[in-house]
Amino acid sequence: MASPSNGRDPLEMVRGLPAGSEVEIRTSDGRSYRGTFLPSHELSGPRIVRLKLPSGYNIGVRVGPGDAIAILSRNGNGSGPGAAPPARSEPPQGSDGRPWVALLTTGGTIASRVDYRTGGVRPAKDEAEILSFYPNLEREGPVRVIPVLDRLSEEIAPADWTTIADRVAKTFTEGARGVVVAHGTDTLAYTAAALSFALRDLPGPVVLVGAQRSPDRPSSDGASNLQAATHVARTADLGEVVVLMHEGLSDTSFALHRGTRVRKMHSSRRDAFRTRNGPPLGRLKDQQLTLSADARPSAPGPLRLDPRLDPEASLLWFHPGLGPARAEQYVGGLRGVILAGTGLGHVSSLHLPWIRTAVARGVFVGMTTQCLEGSVDPFVYATGRELLRAGVTYLGDMLPETAYVKLLFGLGRYASASELRGFMLTDVAGEIAYRHPLEPPR
Amino acid sequence: MASPSNGRDPLEMVRGLPAGSEVEIRTSDGRSYRGTFLPSHELSGPRIVRLKLPSGYNIGVRVGPGDAIAILSRNGNGSGPGAAPPARSEPPQGSDGRPWVALLTTGGTIASRVDYRTGGVRPAKDEAEILSFYPNLEREGPVRVIPVLDRLSEEIAPADWTTIADRVAKTFTEGARGVVVAHGTDTLAYTAAALSFALRDLPGPVVLVGAQRSPDRPSSDGASNLQAATHVARTADLGEVVVLMHEGLSDTSFALHRGTRVRKMHSSRRDAFRTRNGPPLGRLKDQQLTLSADARPSAPGPLRLDPRLDPEASLLWFHPGLGPARAEQYVGGLRGVILAGTGLGHVSSLHLPWIRTAVARGVFVGMTTQCLEGSVDPFVYATGRELLRAGVTYLGDMLPETAYVKLLFGLGRYASASELRGFMLTDVAGEIAYRHPLEPPR
Repeated sequence: MASPSNGRDPLEMVRGLPAGSEVEIRTSDGRSYRGTFLPSHELSGPRIVRLKLPSGYNIGVRVGPGDAIAILSRNGNGSGPGAAPPARSEPPQGSDGRPWVALLTTGGTIASRVDYRTGGVRPAKDEAEILSFYPNLEREGPVRVIPVLDRLSEEIAPADWTTIADRVAKTFTEGARGVVVAHGTDTLAYTAAALSFALRDLPGPVVLVGAQRSPDRPSSDGASNLQAATHVARTADLGEVVVLMHEGLSDTSFALHRGTRVRKMHSSRRDAFRTRNGPPLGRLKDQQLTLSADARPSAPGPLRLDPRLDPEASLLWFHPGLGPARAEQYVGGLRGVILAGTGLGHVSSLHLPWIRTAVARGVFVGMTTQCLEGSVDPFVYATGRELLRAGVTYLGDMLPETAYVKLLFGLGRYASASELRGFMLTDVAGEIAYRHPLEPPR
Repeated sequence: MASPSNGRDPLEMVRGLPAGSEVEIRTSDGRSYRGTFLPSHELSGPRIVRLKLPSGYNIGVRVGPGDAIAILSRNGNGSGPGAAPPARSEPPQGSDGRPWVALLTTGGTIASRVDYRTGGVRPAKDEAEILSFYPNLEREGPVRVIPVLDRLSEEIAPADWTTIADRVAKTFTEGARGVVVAHGTDTLAYTAAALSFALRDLPGPVVLVGAQRSPDRPSSDGASNLQAATHVARTADLGEVVVLMHEGLSDTSFALHRGTRVRKMHSSRRDAFRTRNGPPLGRLKDQQLTLSADARPSAPGPLRLDPRLDPEASLLWFHPGLGPARAEQYVGGLRGVILAGTGLGHVSSLHLPWIRTAVARGVFVGMTTQCLEGSVDPFVYATGRELLRAGVTYLGDMLPETAYVKLLFGLGRYASASELRGFMLTDVAGEIAYRHPLEPPR
C-alpha cells in the first residue's frame, strides 16, 4: 500500500494513476471515502477526484491541499479502464473458457458524461471512455464493448432499430452468450419492442439497459444497472428481449420487463420503467434471478433476423377537440396509423368518414387505448361498433407504442391487408394477451 | 309482505310494481336474490327482473314459471323512481332546510343502459330513466337532476366544457350546496381540467363522477360512485373540482382526485382513475372523508366563471419516426400546441426548424412528458437546451392533457405571447407544482 501524501499536494498521488486502482481519500474535516479511482476528463473541474463507491455510485470529492489520498491497490497491469483497450479481432473468451457478453452502446445517458461548460449531458465518444465509467464491468467475465451508435435516444429513428438488430444478430453469430444494449431511456421501450419483433429464436438474452442519471454524477444508476444487465446476459436461460432497470429504492433489486410490454412511466426516477398489464417478466434481487413461468428460454436453433420495416406509419393520440380534417391530414400519405383512443378504444364519431376513406384506400387503422392498461373492446359501446364497421382493427391490450412499432415491421413484411391484419392480431413476442372475439359475444 | 306467487306466472307479481319496492326472488334451483326492484325498459329481454342489491350492484334475474317472487315492501307513494318525477321549478329544498345537491348529467356510462338488440351501451334519455337507475339517490337529502348534455364522452368537445361550466355556475347561483357532474369516463379527466380552469372561488365542491360499467349491468359501479359523489358534494368543505371514483377493490372506498392531476389509467377497471405526481386529494372510506392539507376549502366570495376558450390548439405525442414535416403540418393554422415529448421533455432535433418557425409566427409551443409522471427539465440534456432556445415553454410536471386544456383557456383569455406564457407557467388550479428555474442551475 502506498503511503498518504505527507506535505505534498495530495493530488500528486493520483496523477497518472490507472483507472480501477483502489483509493482512499481522507479530508481534513474527518471524512473518508474508499472506492475505485475513475480518471477525470478535462471538464470535471479542478481538484475533483472521482471514485466509484462499493455501492456502485460515483462521487466526486474536492481534495484540498490539507486532505490526504492513499492508494490502497494500484491497477498496474496496463489493461485498466484508463488505458486504451486492446484491439480485439477475436471474441474475448478467457483461457478458462468463460462465456463472453457483448455490450452494444448506442449513446444515451448510460454512455454519457456531464459537459461542465454547459451543465448538459453529452454522449461518450469511444469504448475507452465507456470503460472508464464502469471499471468493474468485467468482474464476472469478459465483456466486448461494441459501439453501434452514438446519440441520445430521442434521436433514434426506425432505421436505427434495423442497425441495432443486425448488430445483435451478428454478435450472437460470433458466439456471444448474451447481448447487453446500452441505450438512452427516452425511447428505450420503443427500441425494445423493435428488437422483439426483429429477432426471433434468440439463443440468449438481449438485455436493454439505460441510466436515468449520467455515470459521472453521484447518483448515477448506470453502473449498477449495467452490472446487473451483464450478469443476466451472461447467466440467464432466457431467449427474449428484455429491459432491465432498477425496480425501486433498493440498490440491489432490478426488474426485467418484456420488451413489448414496457413503458417509461416517470421522467427522472431510476425505477421509471414499468411493465404494463401484468407483473415484470423477472426480478434480479441480490444477484438471484427469478423469471416468470412464461419467460421464453434460450432457443436451441439458429437465430432468425428479420429487420425489414416500412416507416410509413404513425401513432396518433386522440383528444377532445381534435378535428377530423387535422387527423386525416396527419395520416395522409401513410400506409398505416395506430390510434391511441380513449377508454375501450374510442374516438369521436366525427372521425368515422376519414377512417372509412383511409381503410378503403388500404391504410391500416389500428386501435389501442391511451389509458395504457387494460384492453380495447369494440363491442361495449355503439362507438366501438361503428369504428369496427368502418374498418378499424382493435388491438387488444397492446400498448400504443408497441402497436406502432409492430405496424412498421408488419408493413415491411406484408403487402396484403389481410396478411397484415393477421400479423397485427397474432401474438409474436408477448405483446398481445387479450384479443376481443371477432364476433360480438352472445 | 305480499305472498309468493303460487301457481300463477311469478312475473305477474312485478307487473306495474313501483320502482324502489323491495323484492325477493327465489328460483326453483334454490337460489334467492333480495334487492330493490328496478323497472325493466323494453329491451331488457323477456322474463328478466332487475334488482339493485344492497351492495349497490344491479343484477338481472331470469324468472321462469317455476320460480317465485315475493314483494317485501311496496314503494306505494307514487313518487318512486319508476314514476314520473315531479315538475320542479324551485330548488328541491326539504322542509327541514336540508341543503340540496345538483346532479348534472352529460351522458356517458353512468347514465346509460345496455341496448339488448346490439349489446352496446346507449345514453339514457331523460331524468326519469336516470332516477330509475339510482332509486336511493335522495337518501341523504334532496338531489336536483339537471340534464345538460346527452352523449358519450368521446363526443365531448371543448365547446361542451363551456356549456357545463356555465351550468355549474348557474346551479351554485341558484343555491346548490355542491354539484355532481355525471360524465362518461373516457374524457372525464379532460372535462375535470377544463372546469378547474373555468371556475374559480367555488362555494362548494364540484364532483365529477362516472361509471366504468353501465347501471343495468350486474357489476355496475355507477350507483356507489354516485352515492359517494353526492355525499361529498353535500357535506365537504371543499372549493375544488374533483373526480371521485372507486379507489380499489373495496365497495366502500373512493378516491378524490384533483381535476388537473387525474388521468384514466385503465380501460375497464373501476379504479381506473389515478392522481399523477402525488397522492389523491382525498379519500372517502366507509362514509368518512379525509382531505389532504392542501385541499382548497369552499370560497366565501362569489364564484368567478370564465369559460372563454379558443380551440385552435392541439396535443401532439412525439414518437421515433415522426417526421418534422408531418408535425409541422399538424400544427399548421393553430395558435398553440402541447408536445408530449420523451423523458425530461425531448423531441428529435429534426423538429427544431419548424418549432423555431412556429414560435416566430407567435404559436405557443409547450413541452410536457409522455411518461405522465415526473417533471420536464430543459437543463439536463443538450436537446432540452436547444428546444428551450427555439422558444419551447417547459411546463414542469403538468400532465399533457391538462396542459392542452389549459392552453385552450389561455388562448381564450390572452392575446399576447408573454401574458399567455405567464399564465401557462403560473399555478392556477394545482396543475403545476414543480417548474424548472428560468435560468440553468449553477
